[in-house]
Amino acid sequence: MDTELATLLVVCPDRKGIIALIAQVLFRHGANILDSDQHSDPVAGMFFQRIRFDASTLTAERAVLEDQLRELAGQLAMSWRISYSSQIRRVAILTSKQDHCLYDLLIRHRTGELPCEIAMVISNHAAAAPIAQHFGVAFHHLPVTAASKAAQEAAVVELIEAGRIDLIVLARYMQVLSPAFVARFATSIINIHHSFLPAFVGANPYRQAFEKGVKLIGATSHYVTADLDQGPIIEQETIRVSHRDSVDDLVRKGRDLEKTVLANAVRWHLQDRVLVYAGKTIVFE
Amino acid sequence: MDTELATLLVVCPDRKGIIALIAQVLFRHGANILDSDQHSDPVAGMFFQRIRFDASTLTAERAVLEDQLRELAGQLAMSWRISYSSQIRRVAILTSKQDHCLYDLLIRHRTGELPCEIAMVISNHAAAAPIAQHFGVAFHHLPVTAASKAAQEAAVVELIEAGRIDLIVLARYMQVLSPAFVARFATSIINIHHSFLPAFVGANPYRQAFEKGVKLIGATSHYVTADLDQGPIIEQETIRVSHRDSVDDLVRKGRDLEKTVLANAVRWHLQDRVLVYAGKTIVFE
Amino acid sequence: MDTELATLLVVCPDRKGIIALIAQVLFRHGANILDSDQHSDPVAGMFFQRIRFDASTLTAERAVLEDQLRELAGQLAMSWRISYSSQIRRVAILTSKQDHCLYDLLIRHRTGELPCEIAMVISNHAAAAPIAQHFGVAFHHLPVTAASKAAQEAAVVELIEAGRIDLIVLARYMQVLSPAFVARFATSIINIHHSFLPAFVGANPYRQAFEKGVKLIGATSHYVTADLDQGPIIEQETIRVSHRDSVDDLVRKGRDLEKTVLANAVRWHLQDRVLVYAGKTIVFE
Amino acid sequence: MDTELATLLVVCPDRKGIIALIAQVLFRHGANILDSDQHSDPVAGMFFQRIRFDASTLTAERAVLEDQLRELAGQLAMSWRISYSSQIRRVAILTSKQDHCLYDLLIRHRTGELPCEIAMVISNHAAAAPIAQHFGVAFHHLPVTAASKAAQEAAVVELIEAGRIDLIVLARYMQVLSPAFVARFATSIINIHHSFLPAFVGANPYRQAFEKGVKLIGATSHYVTADLDQGPIIEQETIRVSHRDSVDDLVRKGRDLEKTVLANAVRWHLQDRVLVYAGKTIVFE
Repeated sequence: MDTELATLLVVCPDRKGIIALIAQVLFRHGANILDSDQHSDPVAGMFFQRIRFDASTLTAERAVLEDQLRELAGQLAMSWRISYSSQIRRVAILTSKQDHCLYDLLIRHRTGELPCEIAMVISNHAAAAPIAQHFGVAFHHLPVTAASKAAQEAAVVELIEAGRIDLIVLARYMQVLSPAFVARFATSIINIHHSFLPAFVGANPYRQAFEKGVKLIGATSHYVTADLDQGPIIEQETIRVSHRDSVDDLVRKGRDLEKTVLANAVRWHLQDRVLVYAGKTIVFE
Repeated sequence: MDTELATLLVVCPDRKGIIALIAQVLFRHGANILDSDQHSDPVAGMFFQRIRFDASTLTAERAVLEDQLRELAGQLAMSWRISYSSQIRRVAILTSKQDHCLYDLLIRHRTGELPCEIAMVISNHAAAAPIAQHFGVAFHHLPVTAASKAAQEAAVVELIEAGRIDLIVLARYMQVLSPAFVARFATSIINIHHSFLPAFVGANPYRQAFEKGVKLIGATSHYVTADLDQGPIIEQETIRVSHRDSVDDLVRKGRDLEKTVLANAVRWHLQDRVLVYAGKTIVFE
Repeated sequence: MDTELATLLVVCPDRKGIIALIAQVLFRHGANILDSDQHSDPVAGMFFQRIRFDASTLTAERAVLEDQLRELAGQLAMSWRISYSSQIRRVAILTSKQDHCLYDLLIRHRTGELPCEIAMVISNHAAAAPIAQHFGVAFHHLPVTAASKAAQEAAVVELIEAGRIDLIVLARYMQVLSPAFVARFATSIINIHHSFLPAFVGANPYRQAFEKGVKLIGATSHYVTADLDQGPIIEQETIRVSHRDSVDDLVRKGRDLEKTVLANAVRWHLQDRVLVYAGKTIVFE
Repeated sequence: MDTELATLLVVCPDRKGIIALIAQVLFRHGANILDSDQHSDPVAGMFFQRIRFDASTLTAERAVLEDQLRELAGQLAMSWRISYSSQIRRVAILTSKQDHCLYDLLIRHRTGELPCEIAMVISNHAAAAPIAQHFGVAFHHLPVTAASKAAQEAAVVELIEAGRIDLIVLARYMQVLSPAFVARFATSIINIHHSFLPAFVGANPYRQAFEKGVKLIGATSHYVTADLDQGPIIEQETIRVSHRDSVDDLVRKGRDLEKTVLANAVRWHLQDRVLVYAGKTIVFE
């Protein structure tokens, strides 16, 4: 029988003995803790923990363990969620014309870097169709105009709901999503912005960076919220540029950043390493 | 006899044959070009060049060569400046309480990294006095209050003028300089800002970065202009941070960035590697 | 009419006036120098230069200019080569089972990052066939066994000769090439080694790195010479690892390095930015 | 009353329930766990943990808690050590002529980055005397010749024993220590080597790097063992170099690496973040 791994994520007000209490519950049910990472935020007075354990050695039903965790959660005012490695997450990639992040995610997935099923690619342009086909992923072409914006987004929602999608990845999807869409899939949409946020919010960040004359450019992956480019930052990276670099050079160098920064964010999300609190992320590495 | 190195910096509208024309002038006077770096900005239509040559092999007086360059400059609408390695630049360091950049510059100077004389340290706090003394540098304590701000700045100007200072380095000097001061020493004041500009302008950038939840922090050295934290950027660097880092940790990590970023900017300026055009820098490496 | 760009690369013993002499020749023939980068090695007493100029403004035939350069070369004991942007270089990619570098090069090529034609993909495994096909590139499957090694290499040579290949890229090609092969295509074979050379030469560098407990891993692209993993280094990069990383994690992190390091080396080679001298490279950026 | 922080470090064969067992012991004695980091090495079958807890809330004597930990250690075949923040570690810095690491450590200590007392500076050169004096640290000048090597080392041992030194930092100390010395202070001597080990072992690593033509240079801090430059690596960093950099430039760039890499290693050691197992380190960040 294959090993079944479980990941427990926990957020609660900080107090004495939390680690021991949670560890005891798991220990009593025969769970073997493989990995445990924890963070206390002294300013917020909050406690965060990620525990990975072997769920194939549980002495009772999962439901029994989860009941006990629920009880403990009540006691500690703790919010929690648990995931199991046998429950493969389903991912939808939304993209436009630029295909470097799309390719990158599909290749990484095939290499085994991303523990998920890529259930579909959705694009407002037809150009990505042969790419999705090459990797054997369903492709949906949903073109969009100013007039059809709402209808197109409704079609996207329908596909995502029908496809039981757990995570939406905006791989250079150049459409702004409506607040309603964003609210519906809270903490389940990851975007890549092609600047070192909060610098260069909005359109054409590479041109903005060029005109400012910065010596480094960056990329930022973040959860999408109603405020454009303001959601909790998951990952960032920078690369050196110089006066020799044209805007096109910044675009070229930036593509490499965008790919790795987005892929890291997606992988960490899928591995339940990311917690959001107060507009920021805790990323357990 | 010691070698005398000359560095020629040139800016002019781009056109055919500039490189050949300048090289011919130097060649005709017996100058041996050691190093030549050049940049064309196709958008601005401008040409920039830095040439380092051995001036000890000149067949005529320097004045003769400079006359010919002046003639060529007229022909090409070229602005230019020339410096000689025997003309040691004089530097004043302005600092407040934080002494890491001050120490860093003084140590690098003693190790031979900075081709200049550090003529004085000026501070609004007395704490830096023993540091200046340890390195044998003159120290001037000019305390400042809201009421004495203008008078103190006048005293700074007097010291700088009397000391024939070529470059003013703000090594975490926590006073905003007046527009008149800045205008007087244009392209001769280098500041270190403790963020990756243009993100986190103004006060407490590390706290701003902490509250935003960025995954990298940065430091930026720039020429000081009348617009606070907006002058031409000379150098930037970033370092990785995580949710584990408190504001104090950001401050600690940032200190290392500030030191190297400021030191690089100062060294490049002293080596005549930096040209300013349209609010941005060309840094010939 | 399209602009025709020419790139001139020059190596000769250092002496006074070389820059002026070359610039004069170009200027006299109406060439507009767009970019010029130069390096003097004081230890070796050698001079290196790369000049990019607009060849569409030449007042005479190219042959006339080249004759004059030949004459100057005799005078200066200078070796030189010139390339024109209309002469598209032809590239062959050799690969085995690991396909991340293959994908990466093909995607970059399609995005316009690599100024060349990718004329063929050769592999000892059939797995890369659909990848080549997806990008419309000819694929040749040349399996190899211990017994067929010499014959397979002969078949590779035949394909490369027939295809008039200018550059051979070993994109994780896991076969050691014979000294005869390497000699035949000197300075025309670029390999990617998955370590920070000279550390971890030979097989399984990620396992070697894991066992040594290094805190950074690297990748190195280099020209292939008869000495395994000892050829002139073109580009290197490192990434941070920790005790948490298994060998598989190193392999995953390393893939990202390998892709960018190899792609940079290939692009720089194709842009005539790389000169080899005394077992090292000069890379004009 | 000030908070008393305790740090418990643990190594034992991996098995189910270790985390819960240790957490229970601490919880039962009123310890408030502030931080807990843990690592399982599946290849070695070993478990490693670092727990930081508030020892000022203990309900019994420390000795009682330690007795219980001793009992648990017997049960789990666990080696462990505990340290308290009130027990300030005593550090000796050994140095030669190059003073950048010495300055760096002394400045960081004064800024509060290094939780220790710097009890003495020992050097085989007198040049460091005014530096030690400037920072108010005792200085011992112990010159060394080929003939006096053993006697000088004996004098060093005497100073270290008399000064009850916990950690010896080799801040560019250019003397090879005897196996007896190294054995006496096992896992208590940290060295900085000026290369990216295992590349460029031994003398003149910057010259070796220059001659190899690498595109990055590095620095490595490690515990000193009997095998020169082979001890467990604590921290490494690299920086980009190019064909333009002379050996002197590598030395200059390398100094910045050496400073931060050594300082990080020393700080992590003093914070009990470093465990050694099988010739490698686990560094809990």
